[in-house]
Amino acid sequence: MTSIKDLEQAPSGTQLELPTFLDGIKFNDQGLVPAIAQDTSSGSVLMLAWMNRQAIEQTLSSGQVVYFSRSRQALWRKGETSGNTQALQSMHFDCDADAILLQVEQLGPACHTNRENCFYLRVANDLVTVTKSPPTARQ
Amino acid sequence: MTSIKDLEQAPSGTQLELPTFLDGIKFNDQGLVPAIAQDTSSGSVLMLAWMNRQAIEQTLSSGQVVYFSRSRQALWRKGETSGNTQALQSMHFDCDADAILLQVEQLGPACHTNRENCFYLRVANDLVTVTKSPPTARQ
Repeated sequence: MTSIKDLEQAPSGTQLELPTFLDGIKFNDQGLVPAIAQDTSSGSVLMLAWMNRQAIEQTLSSGQVVYFSRSRQALWRKGETSGNTQALQSMHFDCDADAILLQVEQLGPACHTNRENCFYLRVANDLVTVTKSPPTARQ
Repeated sequence: MTSIKDLEQAPSGTQLELPTFLDGIKFNDQGLVPAIAQDTSSGSVLMLAWMNRQAIEQTLSSGQVVYFSRSRQALWRKGETSGNTQALQSMHFDCDADAILLQVEQLGPACHTNRENCFYLRVANDLVTVTKSPPTARQ
């Protein structure tokens, strides 16, 4: 039977049933795995958040990205209050099944600061520089 | 004095000294923060790995990406054995300073399976499918 480890050397097209795969993935001690959201149209990396098994399953069944909020310790339907939802285009796991890449269609800004994405702090020359202003209309 | 929280509403160009910033970032209980590597030329998300403070500092000083290997519990100079190094183009933190985005120039394949990137397991229709074969020449 095919295991996650077997998939490393498996040719393109090899398949494993999702429940079997999810049984074998490496959640951390909080039951979470990091998930990267990338905008399919711009290619921008929008944010990194966390998913538990239920978040993965609800994202797949609803087609809208659901994370697990570590601060609230609850499922977090991205955009449920802001309206800035993420429609799932595709979901990918990495080679050792402990990270997720979500290709999404982002509605509005991805970041809670209302910037397009969360990675606006650039590090260079021993300084951290804010590279984008928050939209004043939304402050 | 500017803190990390203050940066959320700060305009473009606001700066904070790197040591102050690193003192304030949210490492996990293992002293690590997740780091996403994105290829600057293709835009592909290559991999997710982990950095501690020393890995961040050595990446910035050397210009070559250094992670922290959780399995080996040691600094991991990406490509030190494979030759598949990552030259740092830019480093970015996210809004709450608990994730890093590395823009890199990847030499050779990023993945230890010798695939271009690590996210070759696609999830759809209750199945996980291998989307790329490993290069046979390198098996």
